[in-house]
Amino acid sequence: MPPTHRYTGLIDKYRDYLPIHDDTRIISLGEGNTPLIRLNNIPKLLKKDINVYVKYEGLNPTCSFKDRGMTMAITKAVEEGSRAVICASTGNTSASAAAYASRAGITAFVIIPDGKIALGKLAQAMMHGCVVMQIEGNFDAGMSLVKEVADHAPVTIVNSINPYRLQGQKTAAFEIIEELGKAPDYHCLPLGNAGNISAYWMGYSEFNQIGVVNQRPKMCAYQASGSAPFLRGHPVANPETIATAIRIGNPQSWDKAWAAQKESQGWFDEFSDDEILRSQKLLAEKEGIFCEPASAISIAGMMRDVTSGKIPEGSTIVCTLTGHGLKDPDTAIKQSAKPPLKIKAELNDVKAAIERNLKM
Amino acid sequence: MPPTHRYTGLIDKYRDYLPIHDDTRIISLGEGNTPLIRLNNIPKLLKKDINVYVKYEGLNPTCSFKDRGMTMAITKAVEEGSRAVICASTGNTSASAAAYASRAGITAFVIIPDGKIALGKLAQAMMHGCVVMQIEGNFDAGMSLVKEVADHAPVTIVNSINPYRLQGQKTAAFEIIEELGKAPDYHCLPLGNAGNISAYWMGYSEFNQIGVVNQRPKMCAYQASGSAPFLRGHPVANPETIATAIRIGNPQSWDKAWAAQKESQGWFDEFSDDEILRSQKLLAEKEGIFCEPASAISIAGMMRDVTSGKIPEGSTIVCTLTGHGLKDPDTAIKQSAKPPLKIKAELNDVKAAIERNLKM
Repeated sequence: MPPTHRYTGLIDKYRDYLPIHDDTRIISLGEGNTPLIRLNNIPKLLKKDINVYVKYEGLNPTCSFKDRGMTMAITKAVEEGSRAVICASTGNTSASAAAYASRAGITAFVIIPDGKIALGKLAQAMMHGCVVMQIEGNFDAGMSLVKEVADHAPVTIVNSINPYRLQGQKTAAFEIIEELGKAPDYHCLPLGNAGNISAYWMGYSEFNQIGVVNQRPKMCAYQASGSAPFLRGHPVANPETIATAIRIGNPQSWDKAWAAQKESQGWFDEFSDDEILRSQKLLAEKEGIFCEPASAISIAGMMRDVTSGKIPEGSTIVCTLTGHGLKDPDTAIKQSAKPPLKIKAELNDVKAAIERNLKM
Repeated sequence: MPPTHRYTGLIDKYRDYLPIHDDTRIISLGEGNTPLIRLNNIPKLLKKDINVYVKYEGLNPTCSFKDRGMTMAITKAVEEGSRAVICASTGNTSASAAAYASRAGITAFVIIPDGKIALGKLAQAMMHGCVVMQIEGNFDAGMSLVKEVADHAPVTIVNSINPYRLQGQKTAAFEIIEELGKAPDYHCLPLGNAGNISAYWMGYSEFNQIGVVNQRPKMCAYQASGSAPFLRGHPVANPETIATAIRIGNPQSWDKAWAAQKESQGWFDEFSDDEILRSQKLLAEKEGIFCEPASAISIAGMMRDVTSGKIPEGSTIVCTLTGHGLKDPDTAIKQSAKPPLKIKAELNDVKAAIERNLKM
């Protein structure tokens, strides 16, 4: 008989680096262990000698990186005797909270903005049987409410202000170091509520501090122009972007994100919705990788910074793709140039369509 | 510096067991390596002492098991000089073919049924920039066309009649054996075009033959009642089911699937659409795992067969979840009992909603 080696989630794998007891009941769905995929075609388009990888966090159980933090947050909530959790969400956090609460047998309350949540994310929250509260207001209004409510009701907050969330999320940096055998030179990622950049920086810093690696990447984080408080230097009252996952005007990890950017000598930058969507389409068409709009901003950022030389040739770059493209099928279909060809089920019609469309 | 151990896909991992040359250019998106998740809550509901795991194939790059076969089919098509591939599809095959063809830089033509494809799958095919042909007809009509066209145009078929597809898909059985340290006693899975049961049986049989294990599971495969040719004993002219991924009346791997069922001493069974959807919801609500409707039939089957004693207590059972729930958000939302609560962004309204909904 071969030995068993079933992967049982990131808490079990990284328990020495997480605030977990030996007898903690772990609530896991096998999150983490996502592929780090090397881009083959986009670097050729850029005509630059770079090593670019995407960390495809859309392949976590609920198809976003939130699961890394949620396994920790729900595990600790259960350990501490909580029977209910609450979060505000643009959609990915609510999907993850709903799934892990179901697995744990506790109740999840999620507050989502009215009419600004991608279809897939709403489907997830509803299928996992959590209590979905759609408010007249945006994410930031929901976040304020959650903080207020948690003082007055027996519910644990599982937004990224819950410190266990970032503890779980830092494991993505651990995995990247193990996958590359080093830290990358640059790490590009979307910037919304700013928990993830803080978590990655924590992860890189911990492995640097204990000597697993002897360097840390420059953290390069990107916002949508209509929702760019870090670029403006202050909160934005009415954030707007098609990248709903980063449609956040008042980020909760403000100071941590600035610290990560400064300590790493990285930078913040911004992109229009058009640029975001073009990057999403390019990644899907040239590399076969489908991410949600917000995730694609890390590709937009990498491409601009490589083209300008801000990221020099010879660099190793990791871009985080925070969520799978299936989270938001409507936006994908709307922007696809070629609608399906409607044809008769006949040989000649199909043959003709093939001949017209064959690249030679 | 730590050693690198980046996972680079199933061909690279299992190359000794696949028809691959040392210098073959591998087209991969990091497919395979999906989690095998132990069910905690459903076995308790059944009040049976069983070990049930789900192989969560929805966490492949395009969110279905098709990627296992497609990495092989596209790799070999490119090796053999093909510049274009074609498939008929209920949606998952087309999404996978489109993604891997993009990665390889070749053209994918996909034939999908008119109006019977889940939203997410259509979004994938369109985003990856393949040529989508929607025919007036169902999957079986599309499949006939594909076979005819391939004789008259320079395109390689990448449906599961392409032998490399099953070669790739058999690796799921290898992974399960490595994860459990043995083969399961029972393997439950959905039955549509019947390629997957054939591939799993091939994988289990190969590892049994070379002595990695000394047993093979009973293969238990389930069809939707409105689309159940294996239960009827002959093709079905107008298959109908909400589980669109197995809405196939004339399965291409007919003989192989019968052989797998007979050699393994397993069985076929059928479920109504209502039973399928109930299993999907139960899995999402009790275990936090969201699969597409067709996948849930393996849970329905496991539950019926465990309850009846056909699968005895003490058994180790693996259920394959072929695709992620995000593939079909519409069906999920339609069947969810609780629509979002529309509430004002005010503390008292949220508090009241929490109090009404808190399980105590």
